[in-house]
Amino acid sequence: MASPTTVQESLAQDGARVDAYLRDALTRLTAPAAPPRLLEAISYSLFAGGKRLRPALVLACWRACRRHERSTDVARSALAAAGAIELIHTFSLVHDDLPAMDDDDLRRGRPTNHKVFGEAMAVLAGDAMVTLAFELIATDVSVEPALAVALSRELSRAAGPVGMIGGQVLDMDGENAQLTYEQLVGLHRMKTGALITASCRMGALCAGAGAGAGAGAGADENMLASVTSFGAHLGLAFQIIDDVLDETSTPEQMGKHTGKDAARGKNTYPVLLGLDGARRAAREQLDAALAALHSFAPSPAGDELGALARFVVERRH
Amino acid sequence: MASPTTVQESLAQDGARVDAYLRDALTRLTAPAAPPRLLEAISYSLFAGGKRLRPALVLACWRACRRHERSTDVARSALAAAGAIELIHTFSLVHDDLPAMDDDDLRRGRPTNHKVFGEAMAVLAGDAMVTLAFELIATDVSVEPALAVALSRELSRAAGPVGMIGGQVLDMDGENAQLTYEQLVGLHRMKTGALITASCRMGALCAGAGAGAGAGAGADENMLASVTSFGAHLGLAFQIIDDVLDETSTPEQMGKHTGKDAARGKNTYPVLLGLDGARRAAREQLDAALAALHSFAPSPAGDELGALARFVVERRH
Repeated sequence: MASPTTVQESLAQDGARVDAYLRDALTRLTAPAAPPRLLEAISYSLFAGGKRLRPALVLACWRACRRHERSTDVARSALAAAGAIELIHTFSLVHDDLPAMDDDDLRRGRPTNHKVFGEAMAVLAGDAMVTLAFELIATDVSVEPALAVALSRELSRAAGPVGMIGGQVLDMDGENAQLTYEQLVGLHRMKTGALITASCRMGALCAGAGAGAGAGAGADENMLASVTSFGAHLGLAFQIIDDVLDETSTPEQMGKHTGKDAARGKNTYPVLLGLDGARRAAREQLDAALAALHSFAPSPAGDELGALARFVVERRH
Repeated sequence: MASPTTVQESLAQDGARVDAYLRDALTRLTAPAAPPRLLEAISYSLFAGGKRLRPALVLACWRACRRHERSTDVARSALAAAGAIELIHTFSLVHDDLPAMDDDDLRRGRPTNHKVFGEAMAVLAGDAMVTLAFELIATDVSVEPALAVALSRELSRAAGPVGMIGGQVLDMDGENAQLTYEQLVGLHRMKTGALITASCRMGALCAGAGAGAGAGAGADENMLASVTSFGAHLGLAFQIIDDVLDETSTPEQMGKHTGKDAARGKNTYPVLLGLDGARRAAREQLDAALAALHSFAPSPAGDELGALARFVVERRH
């Protein structure tokens, strides 16, 4: 494949790789007994044209942390990590959209999962995406068991009570209560930041960073620390921009209903800081994310991560 | 601890061990950031006085497959496997009881999770139990990474689209359709059988069975095959008796509403075979489960498994 020259091309190329991998994995892991209607419900949300930002971060961090700079192949472990992250992300969207949760009927420009398949199936399809994420890692990274365990641990922790799911509970509880800036940041570090940070860390782990032994272990630890800081700042920048876009974009641009957060009394960055203040805060987080990349610069892989981060903050949907 | 002399004592002793382990693990894995209300919702259902049958099967199969017969300590890996299985089982109950699913308001003699904490929290608490199950394995079995990966794979596969969740979809789709005996057995092999079989297999894996290398690998493979067959037959016996009890017991005996299956047109063994026919089918499955234990007999550990199986079929709630 030709090397991508823009971040959009890079996202499209990595997205296509991960999609192809996920389609194959879904077929492998669900044969022969999985009910067709369940697979249909899973595929409907998983292949709905998401940006594949998290898988792209896994693969870009994997490339940035690899020893052999020139190889462009994508190792199976990095693909498994990318696919597992996207399964967890998609599961969270399907459950978030349920009537008992955010009660949304539009996602990625299409009716939400429960609108098409019913609530019971949407619950079960989301549940199945979680087990499939961990099965993917345990199956496709099994030749490197220590790595598989490290990936499984990162993912479960980032998705669970101290990560994404915990953040969703705080978000729910925080509706119609006035949060401070610090509380809002704390909530989002869990709700969106944990999975974005885990994407970066899992990519680095697949490249051997943080393995903690042998020559260059120190450098490896530094790389893992760098992508962790990069991911944490990028995660916040992503969420702040998400809040800004929710206020300033049309449903057509976003593929989902907009302006709902403010209407239901949710705490958002624009509400706390104003639109300009929120944009400034996102820019500060972007600068901090870019600063965390100094151990990679100047390299094509480091540049790629920087371009991805800028894209996240400058995107229009 | 004194050796238990009855199956009830054994269940109580293993249940107490697993409960203590799970309480400690929950504290460890959710510190410091998990929202207290989420932990409350998880604990409410996890420590609701379940029979702990699946963890007991993990530990009993672990004891039956161990090389060193006389030691009575419980290895941490077996406890982690038992705890993870119970988290997955409890998650399935919480989501099953949701209004969009079976819409139950009574479970283990208490109001169901969503009745106490609301639907959104019940969805999230169930989700969190899944991620915690995999985090438990990745954290507490990490010193034996190949075992951790094998356990994670067993659990994810047994819980997912070709196992429990797939079976729930078939069960839902099968309501008000007439299933054949073979279809009903196929459904239950997935819905309840997969997790019960996985309990037995995970216990055996923790004892080193199926590791596939070194002296005695052949014997190990035989043991794994034996507990797999034992678990599969026991799982069916368990489900048939569950159906029988749903028709013949009071809500007070069962801790949940009874007679609902027939009322909603669900396919059950008593409907297909009559009560006597269903009891006979359960007995046949029990006999097949006991026959699968011949490679262990005569040993205390093999006897223990046999007693557990008889208890499952002869229970009154």
